[in-house]
Amino acid sequence: MSTELVQTIAEIRHRLESIRSSHQIIGLVPTMGALHAGHESLIQQARKEADCLVVSIFVNPLQFGPKEDYTRYPRMPEADLDFCRRLDVDLIFAPEVEEMYPTPSLTSVEVARMTDHLCGPFRPGHFSGVATVVAKLFHIIQPQRAYFGEKDAQQLRVIERMVSDLNLAVTVVAVPTVRESDGLAVSSRNQYLSPEERRSAPILYRALQAAQQAIAEGVLDCGEARKRALAVLEQDQSVKVEYLEIVDPEEMQPVEQITGPVRVAGAIRIGAIRLIDNLLIAP
Amino acid sequence: MSTELVQTIAEIRHRLESIRSSHQIIGLVPTMGALHAGHESLIQQARKEADCLVVSIFVNPLQFGPKEDYTRYPRMPEADLDFCRRLDVDLIFAPEVEEMYPTPSLTSVEVARMTDHLCGPFRPGHFSGVATVVAKLFHIIQPQRAYFGEKDAQQLRVIERMVSDLNLAVTVVAVPTVRESDGLAVSSRNQYLSPEERRSAPILYRALQAAQQAIAEGVLDCGEARKRALAVLEQDQSVKVEYLEIVDPEEMQPVEQITGPVRVAGAIRIGAIRLIDNLLIAP
Repeated sequence: MSTELVQTIAEIRHRLESIRSSHQIIGLVPTMGALHAGHESLIQQARKEADCLVVSIFVNPLQFGPKEDYTRYPRMPEADLDFCRRLDVDLIFAPEVEEMYPTPSLTSVEVARMTDHLCGPFRPGHFSGVATVVAKLFHIIQPQRAYFGEKDAQQLRVIERMVSDLNLAVTVVAVPTVRESDGLAVSSRNQYLSPEERRSAPILYRALQAAQQAIAEGVLDCGEARKRALAVLEQDQSVKVEYLEIVDPEEMQPVEQITGPVRVAGAIRIGAIRLIDNLLIAP
Repeated sequence: MSTELVQTIAEIRHRLESIRSSHQIIGLVPTMGALHAGHESLIQQARKEADCLVVSIFVNPLQFGPKEDYTRYPRMPEADLDFCRRLDVDLIFAPEVEEMYPTPSLTSVEVARMTDHLCGPFRPGHFSGVATVVAKLFHIIQPQRAYFGEKDAQQLRVIERMVSDLNLAVTVVAVPTVRESDGLAVSSRNQYLSPEERRSAPILYRALQAAQQAIAEGVLDCGEARKRALAVLEQDQSVKVEYLEIVDPEEMQPVEQITGPVRVAGAIRIGAIRLIDNLLIAP
């Protein structure tokens, strides 16, 4: 079966009807396009597990703040189509904004508590926009399995919690972060880094590793582990730290003392580009 | 097929699997139990249209405010079971609170704008609780059709809007209000009225009819139509008016001049009992 591009909700539902009837597994990889090695990893994992593999490509306006990069977010439909063909994707669902939001959405899905820290306070409305569009995609595609990257760890937890709280009949599969050889987490926004900024960018991963190293050496005080990470980031004057936090991996709440696994997560700005990354640390 | 009582999510999903596979229509009537003639009308309508008819019975704590009647809400599981048997219901889904909320729900479904007026300001959190539990029930049962009474017109619109905004694959069917011979809308809370209060209760319907009559006579000013309804309610000193509003039937926003169909809706208190009712008026 060759890769087919579908742009309407009615058509994707129609295409999936017979697949569902014959008890085949539908896998969904929700993306905003500008597909890269991180998405490739998600798609490859999904390809192994699903009979019918759907990749959605939709730059969701709801999850961008008024001062964020919605209009500047990279869009490359032709390249994405080739990318999906190469990876043997069955269906691409790429609706226009008007198809997904024919009227302004008065309904939103909110996930409390786990959006209180990390990116939450810096991107008001972001996770609500994510949860809402993912709920819509789950209702449209009705996949048995859906794949999300660990790079967006907070997003992943928000979606996992939404699925369990709302009894959605989908299994959320977490896929490990893909990194460049120098450690930089692969991201659609990396392409906007100048050569000089690109050389600075791996510093975020090195900072997370410094916290990991401290905890491996027996540091139990998260303040101290955090200080080691921040010391790395301070070495580069071009880097502006938005946050660097150590949180519990379930509810993303700040942890003071290491007593179990934690996630260290950071967001930095290099020039106009915002980068995020995180590491799960099991002491 | 006799009526079967199911109390867990896993079991109801299991029971419905083969029904779904054989392309039968699943109909859901969500209730809080204490079934009465209003529910009977919902169930009879559903019975005509569904191959497999599920009635859920769940007093949802999320939709009661801290000062509301969650603990006092009537529970009569035996009578409800008989009621469903008599009406040829296939499955009753009656989970315990712990089954529906094994952990505190961090996720909520919010429907803005159409909750701004009528019951919305008087019952903060109510419609969010309703939307959230109905989303859960839709995900658990996955009905093709779900039945709601017009008596709770604002709830009905909230659910219809949630379904369209979130692309839920369910058809919401609105069923007309059932009334006693004196006009009182049937409600689980009516049983708590003393004989004297019960005699006062139909005044709400009479007030709504007064507004309807005014509009039928050519009154276009909603302030005037509203005044006629309030004049009826003022005749009974035991009645406390919570609100009496004329709104558009789509988004439940106050209307000043009649230019199309409107809904006149009211809430009153008689003693400790809160009663609501509404009428759709097409001029």
